[in-house]
Amino acid sequence: MRSVHVELGERSYPIYIGSGLLPQAAAYLIKHGLSVKSPHLVVTDDKVAPYHLETLKSSLQAAGFRLVISIVKSGEGSKSLSVFENVMTDAIQGGLDRNSSVIALGGGVVGDLAGFVAATYMRGISFIQMPTTILAHDSSVGGKVAVNHLLAKNMIGAFHQPEFVLYDLDTLTTLPPREVSAGLAEMVKHGLIKDEAFAYWCKDHAGELLALDLDALGYGLERGVSIKADVVSQDEREGGLRAILNLGHTIGHAIEAVGGYGEFLHGEAISIGMAGSALLAEALGRKKGIYAETIAMLTALNLPVILPEHLDEDDLMEAMMHDKKFKEGTMVFVVPDSIGSVSIVKDIPQQLVRDILKQLRKGGEAHV
Amino acid sequence: MRSVHVELGERSYPIYIGSGLLPQAAAYLIKHGLSVKSPHLVVTDDKVAPYHLETLKSSLQAAGFRLVISIVKSGEGSKSLSVFENVMTDAIQGGLDRNSSVIALGGGVVGDLAGFVAATYMRGISFIQMPTTILAHDSSVGGKVAVNHLLAKNMIGAFHQPEFVLYDLDTLTTLPPREVSAGLAEMVKHGLIKDEAFAYWCKDHAGELLALDLDALGYGLERGVSIKADVVSQDEREGGLRAILNLGHTIGHAIEAVGGYGEFLHGEAISIGMAGSALLAEALGRKKGIYAETIAMLTALNLPVILPEHLDEDDLMEAMMHDKKFKEGTMVFVVPDSIGSVSIVKDIPQQLVRDILKQLRKGGEAHV
Repeated sequence: MRSVHVELGERSYPIYIGSGLLPQAAAYLIKHGLSVKSPHLVVTDDKVAPYHLETLKSSLQAAGFRLVISIVKSGEGSKSLSVFENVMTDAIQGGLDRNSSVIALGGGVVGDLAGFVAATYMRGISFIQMPTTILAHDSSVGGKVAVNHLLAKNMIGAFHQPEFVLYDLDTLTTLPPREVSAGLAEMVKHGLIKDEAFAYWCKDHAGELLALDLDALGYGLERGVSIKADVVSQDEREGGLRAILNLGHTIGHAIEAVGGYGEFLHGEAISIGMAGSALLAEALGRKKGIYAETIAMLTALNLPVILPEHLDEDDLMEAMMHDKKFKEGTMVFVVPDSIGSVSIVKDIPQQLVRDILKQLRKGGEAHV
Repeated sequence: MRSVHVELGERSYPIYIGSGLLPQAAAYLIKHGLSVKSPHLVVTDDKVAPYHLETLKSSLQAAGFRLVISIVKSGEGSKSLSVFENVMTDAIQGGLDRNSSVIALGGGVVGDLAGFVAATYMRGISFIQMPTTILAHDSSVGGKVAVNHLLAKNMIGAFHQPEFVLYDLDTLTTLPPREVSAGLAEMVKHGLIKDEAFAYWCKDHAGELLALDLDALGYGLERGVSIKADVVSQDEREGGLRAILNLGHTIGHAIEAVGGYGEFLHGEAISIGMAGSALLAEALGRKKGIYAETIAMLTALNLPVILPEHLDEDDLMEAMMHDKKFKEGTMVFVVPDSIGSVSIVKDIPQQLVRDILKQLRKGGEAHV
C-alpha cells in the first residue's frame, strides 16, 4: 500500500493507494474517527454501484456503520443543481447530522457532486473519497468540489478537503478503455507541468498503463497525486501557482461545454486542450518541437489531439470568455515552456486563440 | 459612526454602524480594496429596492464601479435553491470574475441568499453586507449563509465571512412595526444569553427602540453585534460555544417550518421559542420566575410569546428532529440559567418537550 500525504495544515489528509482497500474500508473510517452513531451517506452512480457498492456496504455494515445510499445517473449530467438537491433530500431524510460524513464512491463527477453536498450540508460535514477511475486521481486531490451551471462548468462550488482518500486499484480493472485513456490524460498532465522525467515515463509505459498493470498504475497514480498535492499545498485556494494545474483546461472546458457535457470525456477534452497549449507555446516563440513531443505523448495513451470540425469557433470562444480563469476581461492561458515546465501567460489576444483553434482542427498542420 | 471589529484572524472584518452611510458606500468599497475593473453583483429584494437601491447605485456608479443587479421577491421563499440558481445566472451573465464581490442590500433573507452565492460562485468571492433591517444585525455577524431545503431551514449553506458590513441606520426608518419588533427579538436575545444589564436595557428602552430612535438603535445594535461577535470569535464554525446563540431557535425554527415560512417572521418565531426555553428552564428546576421575566421583556417589545393552536404538536416535534442542533438522535436545547446566562443541555426527553409545547399554547399557564 502506497500513501501520499497532502500537506494543508489543519486540513492535511492522506491518500491511500493500493490493491484490496475497499473491502477494508471500515478500518479506515474507524482509524479516522468517524462515528458509528451517525448515519453516513454513500453517493455513487449507476455504473459504479453494480461493481463496487456491495463490497463497500459489506465492510461498513459489518463494523456497525449505518448507511444512506444515493445512486445518481452516471455522467456529467449529474453535476447539476437538481441532482444536488435530490442528494440533499436523501441526506436529510436519512437523518444525517453534523457527525455524519459523505462518502464519494466513483469518479470525478460523483466526487465533485458528493463533495459539494458535504461542503454545504449543514454548512459542511466530513467528506471521504473512494475513487474508482484513473481520472479521479486528479479530482480527489485539492478539495475543489462543484456542480455545473447550465451556462458554465464548475461555476457553483467550494473548497472542501476530504478526511482521507481510499484509492483501491482493483476498482480500475473494470474501466472501459476509453475511460482509461481519458484518466491517463490528467496523469501525463502532471508530468507536463512539473516533471519531465515522469511525462516521458508515462509515454514509455503507455502499454502497461493502458493494460491496467497494477504496478505501473500504482506508481503513476502515486506520482501524479504527489505532484498535484505539492502544488495544492503551496496554494490551497488557487491564488496563483495552482493555476498551472489548468494546463489544457481553458480549451478543454470550452470543448466540453460546446459539445454538451457528454460528447467528450473530460480527459479527452483536455488532451485536445493540451495540444492547443503546445501550439500556443510555439506561436509565442517558446521551445520549438514542443507540439510534436506533446502529441506523441498524448497519442501514445490513445488520446485525441485534433479539434473536431463540428464544434463552432465562435461558440468555443464564447464558452472560454465565461471561464473562471479570465480575470477582468483579459485572456489567460497556461503555456508550456518545455516538457515539465509551464508558465501563466496573461493578455493573450483573442485573435491568436482563434488561430490556434483553426490549427488545432488540422492537427497542427498550419503551424510553422 | 460606531464600528465593531469581528475578530476572526485572517477573516476579521469591521461592522460600520451609523446614519448616512449608504450614500458613502463607494468610499467603503475603495477602502476595502474592491476592484473597479470587475463587475459587482448587488442582490436586493422588491421591497427594499424602491427605498434604497438608487442611493447605493448612485454612490457606486459615480465612483466608477460597474454593477449587476439581481432583485428577488421579498420573503423567506427567496431562500430557495431555484432563486439561488437565478441569482447565479445573473452573476454569470453579468461576467462576475474572481475579483468581483456580491453585495447584499436587505435583510436576513437577502444576506443569507447573497452570502451563499458569494460563498459558492467560482468556489467563493468577496461578500459585503448592507443590512436594512434590525434583524440583520444578527445574521450579518458570523458568516453563516444558507438557503432552505423544502424539508428543513438553512440546511444548505456555508461559513463565508464578509469583507465588511455597512449598517446604515437610516434604512431602518422605513421598517413596518411588525418587522421592528421581530428584529428586536434577536437584540434582546443577545442580552438574554450573555448580558443581563443589556437585556434589561432593551426592556427599559422598548419605547425608544420601537419608535426607531437613532441613538437607542445605534447603541442597541452596537451592543447586540458586539455580543454576537464575541461569541463567534471564540467559535467560528459552531463547534461548541456558538450554539448558545440558538436560544429559542429550536422551537422557533420548527414554528417557521410548520407555519410554512411566511406566516411568522423569524423574530416572532424565536420569541415564542425563547418563552418556551424559559418554561423548559423552570421545568428543569433552574431559576424560578425566569419565564415571567422573559415574557415581560418580549411583550414589552410587542413580541408574541404564545404558541398558536393551529400548529400541530407532532408536526413541530417532527420538524425539530430534522433540526441541525440534534446530534446523533438526542435532543439538545439552549436553556437559560438566569437572565444573561444560558447552558447547553443535552438528552432532553422528547416527552418534556411535548409538555413545554402544551404549556406554551396556554401562555405558560400550566407551568408550576
